[in-house]
Amino acid sequence: MTDCPKPASPPVIALMSDFGLTDAYAGTLKGVIHRIAPLATLIDLTHQIPPHSILIGAACLSQAAPYFPKATVFLAVVDPGVGTDRRALGAESGGMYYVAPDNGLLSFVLDAEARIHALENRAYWLEKISATFHGRDIFAPAAAHLARGVPLEAFGPPIYDPVRIPWPQPEPVVRGVWRLPIIAADHFGNLITCLRPEDLPRLGLSDISIRIGQTRIGAVSPTFGALGAGQWLAYWGSGGLLEIGINSGNASAVSGLGAGDTVRLEDPAVVNDAAGTGGPGS
Amino acid sequence: MTDCPKPASPPVIALMSDFGLTDAYAGTLKGVIHRIAPLATLIDLTHQIPPHSILIGAACLSQAAPYFPKATVFLAVVDPGVGTDRRALGAESGGMYYVAPDNGLLSFVLDAEARIHALENRAYWLEKISATFHGRDIFAPAAAHLARGVPLEAFGPPIYDPVRIPWPQPEPVVRGVWRLPIIAADHFGNLITCLRPEDLPRLGLSDISIRIGQTRIGAVSPTFGALGAGQWLAYWGSGGLLEIGINSGNASAVSGLGAGDTVRLEDPAVVNDAAGTGGPGS
Amino acid sequence: MTDCPKPASPPVIALMSDFGLTDAYAGTLKGVIHRIAPLATLIDLTHQIPPHSILIGAACLSQAAPYFPKATVFLAVVDPGVGTDRRALGAESGGMYYVAPDNGLLSFVLDAEARIHALENRAYWLEKISATFHGRDIFAPAAAHLARGVPLEAFGPPIYDPVRIPWPQPEPVVRGVWRLPIIAADHFGNLITCLRPEDLPRLGLSDISIRIGQTRIGAVSPTFGALGAGQWLAYWGSGGLLEIGINSGNASAVSGLGAGDTVRLEDPAVVNDAAGTGGPGS
Repeated sequence: MTDCPKPASPPVIALMSDFGLTDAYAGTLKGVIHRIAPLATLIDLTHQIPPHSILIGAACLSQAAPYFPKATVFLAVVDPGVGTDRRALGAESGGMYYVAPDNGLLSFVLDAEARIHALENRAYWLEKISATFHGRDIFAPAAAHLARGVPLEAFGPPIYDPVRIPWPQPEPVVRGVWRLPIIAADHFGNLITCLRPEDLPRLGLSDISIRIGQTRIGAVSPTFGALGAGQWLAYWGSGGLLEIGINSGNASAVSGLGAGDTVRLEDPAVVNDAAGTGGPGS
Repeated sequence: MTDCPKPASPPVIALMSDFGLTDAYAGTLKGVIHRIAPLATLIDLTHQIPPHSILIGAACLSQAAPYFPKATVFLAVVDPGVGTDRRALGAESGGMYYVAPDNGLLSFVLDAEARIHALENRAYWLEKISATFHGRDIFAPAAAHLARGVPLEAFGPPIYDPVRIPWPQPEPVVRGVWRLPIIAADHFGNLITCLRPEDLPRLGLSDISIRIGQTRIGAVSPTFGALGAGQWLAYWGSGGLLEIGINSGNASAVSGLGAGDTVRLEDPAVVNDAAGTGGPGS
Repeated sequence: MTDCPKPASPPVIALMSDFGLTDAYAGTLKGVIHRIAPLATLIDLTHQIPPHSILIGAACLSQAAPYFPKATVFLAVVDPGVGTDRRALGAESGGMYYVAPDNGLLSFVLDAEARIHALENRAYWLEKISATFHGRDIFAPAAAHLARGVPLEAFGPPIYDPVRIPWPQPEPVVRGVWRLPIIAADHFGNLITCLRPEDLPRLGLSDISIRIGQTRIGAVSPTFGALGAGQWLAYWGSGGLLEIGINSGNASAVSGLGAGDTVRLEDPAVVNDAAGTGGPGS
């Protein structure tokens, strides 16, 4: 009796880029992948990373990756240096695979044991390489070959010094007050800051408050639903970062704030105390 | 001789949300689904329902569903009440499956024989549940488990009183005149009203005309092509609703009208008669 | 011993339209396709061709198609004439399949040996045909049936005179100077012109320069990276056409130029020579 092979789970390739959706750039990547790995399942993370925004891309990738199946190949292309001598990377970290330009895009997904190789082996490139679209010509073919099981080592020499960008940090202003960077505003207008729960002890904070212009948010809310429509709130978002929003409203549109701006993070103990003793002008 | 199993049609999961496409929210849902149901085919209806617009989402779902294969699982997330005690639903109706928050989003797809269950069984949730992203943590896993054949009953107790929103209705102004609600403006700027052919006899109409500001559309056109460029027309749209458009133009941009606004629906017999006998000011 | 069939590559259907992504139009096409061809892989080229822009759609299709697997079925719907008597086409050219309205959308993909048939056989239409959404009712079913192996001949009679639109051409102004049409601005704001390398000998050009208002781009750059941020450049783009961009900037936003506009193409030999001998006002 013969055994028919059980249908295996198809390999998954997840795509992220700043290509937008008006042109056929993202679709063309998929054509290239499908010619090489016809059984792969392709999933779009997003193609609307703001053009050339490596930090937003890197943060997006690190928040989404844990929800994907083991051995997913993440094809990430935000590539302002295309056509220069920046390196192209293939990597494995924590059981996931990554393909990206070497510009910091993988900063928050590569752990200490990550294996990283340069994509130098032209056998895994398209035959003709353009000066401006390595996503199509180098990165997409590499992702497809990885999904088919080509080992990382085959793509090129190991890399031990990938470009890394730092995670943004609250910047101290005076005692008990920091400028807190906003990484991005999401589709709902919620302001996603860089603050993680584990930052609080390091900053000496047991509780926080946020100031945006004249608006004061006095504490972290457990959920949107706890408040009335139109009310500002701060909450731990689904990606594990402190977010600032308006219930049933658009905080980014109302405040005019977005990626690269800051809000004021305050230690309520210090600031309330100061306010309590405050003289003129406090 | 052994029989190899014929390749079965993969289960289909169709996704609809107000998540937009700039963040990785929709992509993350797909990662979650793929971990549970790796052979499912994922099809995006749209992720650009206007934020928190339950009516538009509900109408969109009801217009698209009939064109999908039997047993498609529709994962619909427009969820302004996330984090409150609104229920989460799984349902079967007319041979299709639905997963959605209990806020009226399924109003126009659940028939009288629909089977509806609350998604309360934590065995089918992700392990960690956020306060703001039940799409990822509760709804996507439910859709994936449904696609794999988990019976509805397993997800939780039956629900007999799902939240229902009413289909918008023309509102009478004077005899022969109604305010006709616009449900949505589509990508081409066409204004999709709530009017269905079966409403006409109920309203006592054998023919209709539409007034938008000073513009009068005297009759329903069979098609766009019948008119010159720039001409207004009313026509029965592809979803079975009366639509108002401008041939080769954008009716929403020109009129400034969109979801939630109204146009004037008139009975030509009554209005023309009145005009015929009209005195000053008519 | 029985042979289990090897998993064949699933057929690919690539979709391009001007439907946008806010409505469920594109998603509905996919539901229709999936009912007929459940094993097909669906890839979006883009659904954001500017409404009714046949030239942009035709150019997009011709640039993307070569990167897809042999026998891909391209379902292309930019259809301002829906509801008129414009024909519907199915075609095979260069080993690829195409389904589109007969309005020029296939102008740059149909070669001299292309086989073209009218989609007249109602057996391959949906049962009910709307006046405004032939993408759903006629084109999507045809693409799905083609993907399943229905021969072109079965869809209807052969067509020998499909509508063709011309590729835009540089328009001579004075000796050594042309108005060069811009086909489209891409997501990054790069201006994609109609100029191909093979046009240069025909125009008597061995080198080129570009003028946009007061800005002069003196030569074709090999790559973006060769220049400083903010600098204008002209380069051969990834689709083989001359493009004009600003390094790390948005040329379309800065210049206000886009599809349908022109830039000035100059023969540096002629123009520089004229400048060298120029008197007042040159």
